[in-house]
Amino acid sequence: MQLQEPEGSLRRNETINISKDLMSLTIGIGPNIRKSAYFDSTLRDGVQSFSVYNHMLIPGHFGDPEGEYDRLLNSVAQWDVAAQRQVQMQGTDAGKLAQYLTPRDLTKTKVGQGRYVPLCDHQGWLINDPVLLKLSEETYWLSVADSDIHLWAAAIAQERGWDVRVTEPDVSPMAIQGPKAIDVAERLFGTMVYDLKNFGFIETTLNGIPLVLAKSGWSKQSGFEFYLRDSAKGAALWGVVKEAGQPFGIGPGAPNDIERLESGLISYGADIRWQHYPATPYEIGLGGLVNLEAGHEFIGRAALEAAHNSGPKRQRVGLVLDGTPAFPGHPCPVLRGSDEIGYVSEFAYSKRVGRTIGVGLVTLAHTGTGTNVMIELPYGTVAARIRKIPFV
Amino acid sequence: MQLQEPEGSLRRNETINISKDLMSLTIGIGPNIRKSAYFDSTLRDGVQSFSVYNHMLIPGHFGDPEGEYDRLLNSVAQWDVAAQRQVQMQGTDAGKLAQYLTPRDLTKTKVGQGRYVPLCDHQGWLINDPVLLKLSEETYWLSVADSDIHLWAAAIAQERGWDVRVTEPDVSPMAIQGPKAIDVAERLFGTMVYDLKNFGFIETTLNGIPLVLAKSGWSKQSGFEFYLRDSAKGAALWGVVKEAGQPFGIGPGAPNDIERLESGLISYGADIRWQHYPATPYEIGLGGLVNLEAGHEFIGRAALEAAHNSGPKRQRVGLVLDGTPAFPGHPCPVLRGSDEIGYVSEFAYSKRVGRTIGVGLVTLAHTGTGTNVMIELPYGTVAARIRKIPFV
Repeated sequence: MQLQEPEGSLRRNETINISKDLMSLTIGIGPNIRKSAYFDSTLRDGVQSFSVYNHMLIPGHFGDPEGEYDRLLNSVAQWDVAAQRQVQMQGTDAGKLAQYLTPRDLTKTKVGQGRYVPLCDHQGWLINDPVLLKLSEETYWLSVADSDIHLWAAAIAQERGWDVRVTEPDVSPMAIQGPKAIDVAERLFGTMVYDLKNFGFIETTLNGIPLVLAKSGWSKQSGFEFYLRDSAKGAALWGVVKEAGQPFGIGPGAPNDIERLESGLISYGADIRWQHYPATPYEIGLGGLVNLEAGHEFIGRAALEAAHNSGPKRQRVGLVLDGTPAFPGHPCPVLRGSDEIGYVSEFAYSKRVGRTIGVGLVTLAHTGTGTNVMIELPYGTVAARIRKIPFV
Repeated sequence: MQLQEPEGSLRRNETINISKDLMSLTIGIGPNIRKSAYFDSTLRDGVQSFSVYNHMLIPGHFGDPEGEYDRLLNSVAQWDVAAQRQVQMQGTDAGKLAQYLTPRDLTKTKVGQGRYVPLCDHQGWLINDPVLLKLSEETYWLSVADSDIHLWAAAIAQERGWDVRVTEPDVSPMAIQGPKAIDVAERLFGTMVYDLKNFGFIETTLNGIPLVLAKSGWSKQSGFEFYLRDSAKGAALWGVVKEAGQPFGIGPGAPNDIERLESGLISYGADIRWQHYPATPYEIGLGGLVNLEAGHEFIGRAALEAAHNSGPKRQRVGLVLDGTPAFPGHPCPVLRGSDEIGYVSEFAYSKRVGRTIGVGLVTLAHTGTGTNVMIELPYGTVAARIRKIPFV
């Protein structure tokens, strides 16, 4: 099938035309937005665009989006993800707090294991989807997506009178992602990197730089995250990793929207956000991490039990769009006839799929593969079809 | 005294030179950063730079910083401050929750009154400094600075089992600030605008657009805020206000860093932030809003009583810097001899003062007016003297 051009598939209307020219804006560097420990290093390596995440600048791209995508899929990319901040919970009740914060059963979680854990409010709405790292029986980190979970965790702990101190430690994650990340990691840390299971981690050092080495990262291309424990050593760590990666074609990159759409990864803040696009774990495809059967007490249990019993009303889906419309930078309504049945939170052209693909949340009746829908963009509507995720 | 040029007053070193050229970066418009209800209007009016605040784009300037400053001081500026989100607390226990969240005594706060209220955690550290609006005995808004207070408020309310629902309503503040703001407000709402006291507000409509009209705003130039209650009407409200302001020289602008430094206004996220620059209300100059004598229960009471009894160890100060060094975009250490005695959170050249001025937090022993200090910038050090705030 021929791809349609945006001009052809879009019905123009009178609203402002947010074209591709407006897809990037200038941001002022103010003191209210923090810089990463790798900020200077990414400037030296030619970062061209930033976003803001957890009140911190995070690189968006380095001027070669296609090359950066290829590097992630075929060799290895180096990402500054220091904006993925840590919420540290420390004290005799740290484990109790960690368990109370998530519907996922942590009973069997050992020191050195990480867990992807949905966090919900008392109504069962997601408020974040961090990775939990158990550093010791009394020390846990939540490696958080873009919301102030330290406030949430501190409020719960204090109101319950539990012995646990919530802080944001000096920890700055950097990721290497891609099929050759394992080679870079071996060169840096030796063959022990092959022993790490997914989400497994160890506390170690590299040239005297203290860090936590984890087999994790926000892509499906496999890789590692280095949780640097001294922000003064950001440039040193960036340099060491860059140097070790040279034989494997390492280059700078950033969490990749296209790859995450293809892989079906959730982006809290984009796909869902408590304030205006609330969703339960069941709706967003994380029902498998709600362990009601484990019987533990956790925030939102009653609401999630009710949601489980009634079944979800909406479901996360993939969408294949006609043509190559420009993504306007915000979620857009999905229509079936004249009914609004949900929204698409992001879409982009995927070279691998050969189509423009997106992810969204729609009412259950319309989630069947092949269902024809329309997407309402600021500059017109475009036809799309529902399909399952992941796309690849 | 002659102003020194930056080249002369700065000792160069080997770190990266973050020059004025790097003071703005490009930001990608991703779905994780929300757009304001006035986004299209500010684009049309030529916005040139944004920042990110409460996960939302907020205009930084419109390409004429000097003209925008003059407008704020001499006529009237129109600001998109929709990123100042509302945390709505509604229910029979809403007042109880509002009072429990702040050390300020709210006993005499009436419907239609706003209050500037520090919010602290259980250790007495500030987590936000919003304006509280009492809309009814059972409905309050916290018009918040840049942190996720909805998570904090919801956690407290739920853990206490109080009858109060915490939400983010569809409310988008726009401000008009400057000496002629009152004329614009009168033209829009009639002479009743003269009856509003500072922080006073009323629920009303303008051409059928529902809003809360408040005498408030983040400047010391006086003005009003329009809390739009239907984001679909952002462009309509922007247009009506712009039109009404024409005879008074209205033009677009944004919260102004220079004016706020001159006036000594606090910028939560810049001057202080829980995660890395924590401070108590006493240290930051808000001790007068900690009403221990009122005897009410509030979060952080025990910690603030102890802080009150021992007296603050640090104090907010103004700083006058030599020359016109470029602000590097992040807080910088303040030195006395070789001792680090605090930090300056932001500085800028003030035309009114005729010097480069900043605000910071330093240890009590060194807060005397005229104390000579050094400020450590990424590209060298610069001499400065302590003085009191406000500057004007």
